[in-house]
Amino acid sequence: MSSYKVTYFNITALGEPIRFLLSYGGQDFEDNRITLGKGKGGEQWEKLKPSTPFGQMPLLEVDGKVAHQHLAICRYLGKKFGLVGDNDWEALQIDTIADTVNDYRLKLVPTYWIDDEELKEKNYAEAIKTTIPFYLERINDLAESGYLANGKLSWADVHLAALLDYLSMLTRFSIVDKYPNLKKVQNNVLALPSIKAYLAKRPKTDF
Amino acid sequence: MSSYKVTYFNITALGEPIRFLLSYGGQDFEDNRITLGKGKGGEQWEKLKPSTPFGQMPLLEVDGKVAHQHLAICRYLGKKFGLVGDNDWEALQIDTIADTVNDYRLKLVPTYWIDDEELKEKNYAEAIKTTIPFYLERINDLAESGYLANGKLSWADVHLAALLDYLSMLTRFSIVDKYPNLKKVQNNVLALPSIKAYLAKRPKTDF
Repeated sequence: MSSYKVTYFNITALGEPIRFLLSYGGQDFEDNRITLGKGKGGEQWEKLKPSTPFGQMPLLEVDGKVAHQHLAICRYLGKKFGLVGDNDWEALQIDTIADTVNDYRLKLVPTYWIDDEELKEKNYAEAIKTTIPFYLERINDLAESGYLANGKLSWADVHLAALLDYLSMLTRFSIVDKYPNLKKVQNNVLALPSIKAYLAKRPKTDF
Repeated sequence: MSSYKVTYFNITALGEPIRFLLSYGGQDFEDNRITLGKGKGGEQWEKLKPSTPFGQMPLLEVDGKVAHQHLAICRYLGKKFGLVGDNDWEALQIDTIADTVNDYRLKLVPTYWIDDEELKEKNYAEAIKTTIPFYLERINDLAESGYLANGKLSWADVHLAALLDYLSMLTRFSIVDKYPNLKKVQNNVLALPSIKAYLAKRPKTDF
């Protein structure tokens, strides 16, 4: 049995899908949470950053070997735990929707994670008319079965469910309240006993 | 044998890795090139766009079924053609560096693909001091063997080699002239007979 260590800020965001997937797989893991401070992430992160492969978290250590890039890590864990579909085409559908959810997140970065308040609000005013409905309507349409791809549970569902609180924060409204199929995806993942157990014990954080 | 159709602008950029990989796999494919016009991509693209899954190209059709998201497509083709490593950890290394190359590309978007000339130059002035050396030095370090991951050819090498001209355009200097290990990756891919044959017949385009 492998030993796992997740290193990320003490928030949900990009670390949470990894924590969810390890929980889904029934794996104990060291949950190494870095204090999120002001400015560029905080003092603890500024010390750690130069030792990371590309100055980014989350990191996953597997038996002491370090991995980065959250989507690549999620796919790796998805393989371990049988969440990558039954053939190459199904795996492609899973990868595609996970990348699309990630595109959505990245497109909202300039509406939230910039200092210039005026530009931030200008960007949000544009996004609420374009990116936000465009992406969420299409992703919602794909999830009618309650799953994002292939009509069954995959790591893309676990990834999205873990990320939803963060995405709703960026979006500035509750995604699942407005998009019922995404609520179904969330319900399907949060109803899993392994995820329930993780949620019951995870630290309370601002987001 | 499957039938393949690639739909993308008549440029290299994100379509070229798919064209390279199909060529590597010895697959004939329909190379459907959309005229790149001014503004939002041009008239032909504006007509096609609403029929695409998320308003983006490239698209790959496999036996009439449509796929999008260029990295997901590259991984799918990589699996078909034996370019995904020998185990899950190797596949993770390949996925990770491909995502990192993609991060680099995305970080340069505000230095190139925006209309505000002053902001664009401000963004580039910042990137040339930070993002550009930070990423390229680290990616170059990883590629000492002439391959980006696991010391052997993977779809991440083919992806990078196909994207290098475009990345050099965004970077505003020749990446391979400055980073010798990335030149090795390029040489290793361009020396493949299947890629040579594709390059000999591909249309000449501006980039």
